[in-house]
Amino acid sequence: MSAVLLSHIRVVLSRTSHPGNIGAAARAMKTMGITSLYLVSPKKPPDIEAEAMASGAVDVLKGARVCASLAEALQGTIYSLAVSARRRELAYVSVDARSGARQLLAAAREGEVALVFGTEMSGLTNEEILQCRAATHIPADPGYSSLNLAAAVQVMAYESRIAALEAQPRPEVGAAAARHEDVENFYAHLERSLLASGFLNPANPKRLLPRLRRLFGRVRLEQEEVNILRGMLSSFDKNT
Amino acid sequence: MSAVLLSHIRVVLSRTSHPGNIGAAARAMKTMGITSLYLVSPKKPPDIEAEAMASGAVDVLKGARVCASLAEALQGTIYSLAVSARRRELAYVSVDARSGARQLLAAAREGEVALVFGTEMSGLTNEEILQCRAATHIPADPGYSSLNLAAAVQVMAYESRIAALEAQPRPEVGAAAARHEDVENFYAHLERSLLASGFLNPANPKRLLPRLRRLFGRVRLEQEEVNILRGMLSSFDKNT
Repeated sequence: MSAVLLSHIRVVLSRTSHPGNIGAAARAMKTMGITSLYLVSPKKPPDIEAEAMASGAVDVLKGARVCASLAEALQGTIYSLAVSARRRELAYVSVDARSGARQLLAAAREGEVALVFGTEMSGLTNEEILQCRAATHIPADPGYSSLNLAAAVQVMAYESRIAALEAQPRPEVGAAAARHEDVENFYAHLERSLLASGFLNPANPKRLLPRLRRLFGRVRLEQEEVNILRGMLSSFDKNT
Repeated sequence: MSAVLLSHIRVVLSRTSHPGNIGAAARAMKTMGITSLYLVSPKKPPDIEAEAMASGAVDVLKGARVCASLAEALQGTIYSLAVSARRRELAYVSVDARSGARQLLAAAREGEVALVFGTEMSGLTNEEILQCRAATHIPADPGYSSLNLAAAVQVMAYESRIAALEAQPRPEVGAAAARHEDVENFYAHLERSLLASGFLNPANPKRLLPRLRRLFGRVRLEQEEVNILRGMLSSFDKNT
């Protein structure tokens, strides 16, 4: 059971600078039974140094998918968790690593999910975080919170494994969770409708769209709910 | 309180081969607020490579005490936990990392405690484990349980920090939650807007409103979010 859940998790590394860190991350993942690795526009592709750092996890490295964008790496996922050093993001109030891992594993019962990590130096951009459904942080010491990339992957993979081992089979069958791309299409529709109605002023958008993403991001929308919301928007559109 | 508890923890690295691993372990410790490092007969003392790997934790490295024996490194402790890859040791039935960290922190209320790690290749000897009070293991994947030394230190330091944080009350400050009556007013507004737009057919309402309540009910709306949602609806209303 836990092995199946862990196989639903992909680790996404965005714009990593050093191949050695990709290798070390692959090793960290594999020690916890997670083997699906996605690389978004790595500065350099995995090389001999990456393989040296991967140690016995070269298979994870060799199986990595290289993507041109985060959107591509998240395609098909029903839940995604941005891992960030900051406790409070522009977009989300991030939950701690343990709660985040539990939410991730709850979603992994229903489909593919992602743990998303940014660059070694500056982490994820706000734009990247907004593409994820929620955010999480490792509660490091505020005076020195500089975990290296592989260390952060190690902690999140560890928490995910423990959450998977804790997971009891749940008889309750929930409604189908919405896919990443359908939720993104809803956001795009919402933006168009709000522009048309005049509520969103393109000259002065303030933080309206990020705030709405933060709101709906907390819900874990179901497929049918996305359909209802889009139907609502269409009914408003007709009148504008 | 948690800082005091964490200051009672020393990390003991026995017979480490590579100075770089000592540096990486120092960094891992410091990110979790643990700064006391003991080195038992390191093969090579910390050097320039160790400092590079320590990054912002060079102070931890420079403050490390080098000891001739594990007995010397454990002097003054009231509890010590051997960290091992194997679930069952000759000496002890080892507990998992989370339980181990909780036991460590319970002891840290009363005095100095130690987390003890062996060599990169073969871990601790049975003789070393027997000098500790108990043993713990990180529940890695049985097929590939090869965490590197710094990764193992990272996970144990993380669990220790969480156990320390759990030991005290946490003040949680969130955004102001919306009041019941404001949420109800939002639902009433939503119903009026959907009637006006024609999406809600009073002759055949189906389960539209209950479904929308179910959706927004999951969010725990904030006061400001309710204001935004009502502003959105008003912008749509003007056009119907």
